[in-house]
Amino acid sequence: MPSASASRKSQEKPREIMDAAEDYAKERYGISSMIQSQEKPDRVLVRVRDLTIQKADEVVWVRARVHTSRAKGKQCFLVLRQQQFNVQALVAVGDHASKQMVKFAANINKESIVDVEGVVRKVNQKIGSCTQQDVELHVQKIYVISLAEPRLPLQLDDAVRPEAEGEETSTSQAVFRLQSGICHLFRETLINKGFVEIQTPKIISAASEGGANVFTVSYFKNNAYLAQSPQLYKQMCICADFEKVFSIGPVFRAEDSNTHRHLTEFVGLDIEMAFNYHYHEVMEEIADTMVQIFKGLQERFQTEIQTVNKQFPCEPFKFLEPTLRLEYCEALAMLREAGVEMGDEDDLSTPNEKLLGHLVKEKYDTDFYILDKYPLAVRPFYTMPDPRNPKQSNSYDMFMRGEEILSGAQRIHDPQLLTERALHHGIDLEKIKAYIDSFRFGAPPHAGGGIGLERVTMLFLGLHNVRQTSMFPRDPKRLTP
Amino acid sequence: MPSASASRKSQEKPREIMDAAEDYAKERYGISSMIQSQEKPDRVLVRVRDLTIQKADEVVWVRARVHTSRAKGKQCFLVLRQQQFNVQALVAVGDHASKQMVKFAANINKESIVDVEGVVRKVNQKIGSCTQQDVELHVQKIYVISLAEPRLPLQLDDAVRPEAEGEETSTSQAVFRLQSGICHLFRETLINKGFVEIQTPKIISAASEGGANVFTVSYFKNNAYLAQSPQLYKQMCICADFEKVFSIGPVFRAEDSNTHRHLTEFVGLDIEMAFNYHYHEVMEEIADTMVQIFKGLQERFQTEIQTVNKQFPCEPFKFLEPTLRLEYCEALAMLREAGVEMGDEDDLSTPNEKLLGHLVKEKYDTDFYILDKYPLAVRPFYTMPDPRNPKQSNSYDMFMRGEEILSGAQRIHDPQLLTERALHHGIDLEKIKAYIDSFRFGAPPHAGGGIGLERVTMLFLGLHNVRQTSMFPRDPKRLTP
Repeated sequence: MPSASASRKSQEKPREIMDAAEDYAKERYGISSMIQSQEKPDRVLVRVRDLTIQKADEVVWVRARVHTSRAKGKQCFLVLRQQQFNVQALVAVGDHASKQMVKFAANINKESIVDVEGVVRKVNQKIGSCTQQDVELHVQKIYVISLAEPRLPLQLDDAVRPEAEGEETSTSQAVFRLQSGICHLFRETLINKGFVEIQTPKIISAASEGGANVFTVSYFKNNAYLAQSPQLYKQMCICADFEKVFSIGPVFRAEDSNTHRHLTEFVGLDIEMAFNYHYHEVMEEIADTMVQIFKGLQERFQTEIQTVNKQFPCEPFKFLEPTLRLEYCEALAMLREAGVEMGDEDDLSTPNEKLLGHLVKEKYDTDFYILDKYPLAVRPFYTMPDPRNPKQSNSYDMFMRGEEILSGAQRIHDPQLLTERALHHGIDLEKIKAYIDSFRFGAPPHAGGGIGLERVTMLFLGLHNVRQTSMFPRDPKRLTP
Repeated sequence: MPSASASRKSQEKPREIMDAAEDYAKERYGISSMIQSQEKPDRVLVRVRDLTIQKADEVVWVRARVHTSRAKGKQCFLVLRQQQFNVQALVAVGDHASKQMVKFAANINKESIVDVEGVVRKVNQKIGSCTQQDVELHVQKIYVISLAEPRLPLQLDDAVRPEAEGEETSTSQAVFRLQSGICHLFRETLINKGFVEIQTPKIISAASEGGANVFTVSYFKNNAYLAQSPQLYKQMCICADFEKVFSIGPVFRAEDSNTHRHLTEFVGLDIEMAFNYHYHEVMEEIADTMVQIFKGLQERFQTEIQTVNKQFPCEPFKFLEPTLRLEYCEALAMLREAGVEMGDEDDLSTPNEKLLGHLVKEKYDTDFYILDKYPLAVRPFYTMPDPRNPKQSNSYDMFMRGEEILSGAQRIHDPQLLTERALHHGIDLEKIKAYIDSFRFGAPPHAGGGIGLERVTMLFLGLHNVRQTSMFPRDPKRLTP
């Protein structure tokens, strides 16, 4: 292990405590030399979460951050933190520690990373402020591995390490661990259902959906665009007989919206699937995938959910099996009964979506449901019309706690009907020629949908801003870090 | 199910065959009306791969593409294809089929999608040209679900559906199914090792690595850039105590290179991990992850490997456990012995990498190895120097069949040394201030690496161009589809 000495570096803080002429403990503390992979010691570092009474009286090495320190006469109490776990450590003048060593420990800047050797001791009274409540560490050696400067920079003040320390650091860890879990459960479920993961290009030659809200890229001597969705590519894979595909990747929207739920770059979980006779085959697969995610999160991420709830209390997420499906006209009836005035072909406003969420929760006791059969007029041109009612379409949204997390539909797989619908929407056929042409060589009926990862994380945890569930959020005013 | 009739649409081809006045079979074939989710029939569609002698004499429904058709007097032989599987189907004049029905079947454009009802019959002689060799389907009903136009468009001629039909279609399916498997195995292995998946932004405010080869994006009233790697963000997550992270996502390189292994947009599999004392802890985790991927592919994707090998024959991929590690100086010695002239601090050229791959294969019988301890001079400024030899660095590349698939290193986690190295490389400190600042508040020693997905797929399968392993390749001259 890197040789440690009390005098290697003379940096701002430690100078005063380096005055250790007659210090019998001087080999037992100090600033360690930078770890440059000089050696491969056998030393085992024990995890903070494993410091329990089972380890009582053992001598262990731990690497952790100094979360707090408090000197008190001949003693110094440290709280050592490792991710969401922390333990109390005691440096006390005695056989192992000198006065100078206690002073050194007390002066280590918060957030510094230290290697500590200590004896695990059972405590008589539970330590309420730490996750490891039954033991403390009696420090015999302490070396600084990475010295933190005295304060946090603005750049790190975001989601990764929020404004305040402690609770919020743990919340952040928990949020992003759970988000990693959503991606994992999404893939695990779909791969078990026989889906293939695809990678779709983000730099494209023509704006995907008509040209609005698209970012332009300088591409050598030409212009290109950033994909607003993997729509076209998912559908091409269906035309190429992949049958069931999904993708996870960034999508880009140059919308100048500054709301709690819009980002200019977010992560899309996308699904597309050929079906036999009815788009509900697909809709039900997607809804079941969401249910598997909810179940998996509640089974595997209880610790993370509770950690977040401590800072942001919230009712547990409720869902039904099978998922509740309402038709758009039923939703309209519910809203009208609640006093909302809306036309049959009007789209839902955000407040009305929220209100509907409350009404549905009251009536059906679920935070997750499908709204099916949207008016044709409010959906994109490639949405399949309902064959029984020309004003409706074979399309659906899915909602969590009253906010939309997925939009999907049966797509038109017939080039002639697709052309008619594009013309009806006033779309320039030249610009979507490649798209229409991809259906000329035999295309199975298919449907799909796109899910916003940050929204799912936010709404599952009952948070109120997607910036809390994006590590490095991007909006019209924010491009850093 | 959608009502089928012989006269719904009068499109180019079928007109002549619609003349069915006195046709006793006229309800048994035709162009089906477009599937708009009119009904939810109970009908079960059997998969082509499940048409085996176990199903002999059963009446089944199958949906598949017309791969080929060949009329022969009163009979028509079709080959029906579903992904990489196909089966022979026979329409013969008799109780179920009329002369007109046989003619209809014979005239269906190739690649059209059909629903066929038929009896599974054991054949006396194996059908060598089909994957289902022991049975054929005696057709009783046939309806066109999606009629293909007579030829393939250029737009679909790429990786998804290559130039020639048949063999190449199957190859393509196999390549991308295996690629999906690589992503799955990568994640599965890392999640089992305790890694967290992270999502990093692709639109960034400053060019990641110095400013060369970066695409510019118009971002509202300003300029932004496309990330050339998730490097900075992976490292910030390590500084925020995530300890072990990975990401899968697009990376962008505005390099005007037109080679077999360069793309302007590719999929990066990225890893970053804090270690205790030596970067080999990380290097070995990465190498083991690759080994788990190779093993998983050989166990779970044998069919796909064999399908690709039929068109592109190749030796099975060989690897050792644990992975062979050579130091750069050893590699130099091997190359010099083989007649190559190189200085101690020269980088490896592509031909020399290839040659080294051959020498290593000969001597150690492995297609996968690590080259460790690269000269410091040829690595980026943030690479940790070797503490024992100032001309070397704690960095490594990994190779498959003599081509680089991963580049990685211990990163400098000390802001002072990082500043010195940046200055040495002539980098403008202002431009990397946020990067350097992220190490000021306690950073554990860490290392990582980035893998190119398309290269791994290409080299595992012994293919010769990354365009074969990218569904929608992007290079300086190619932006579509």
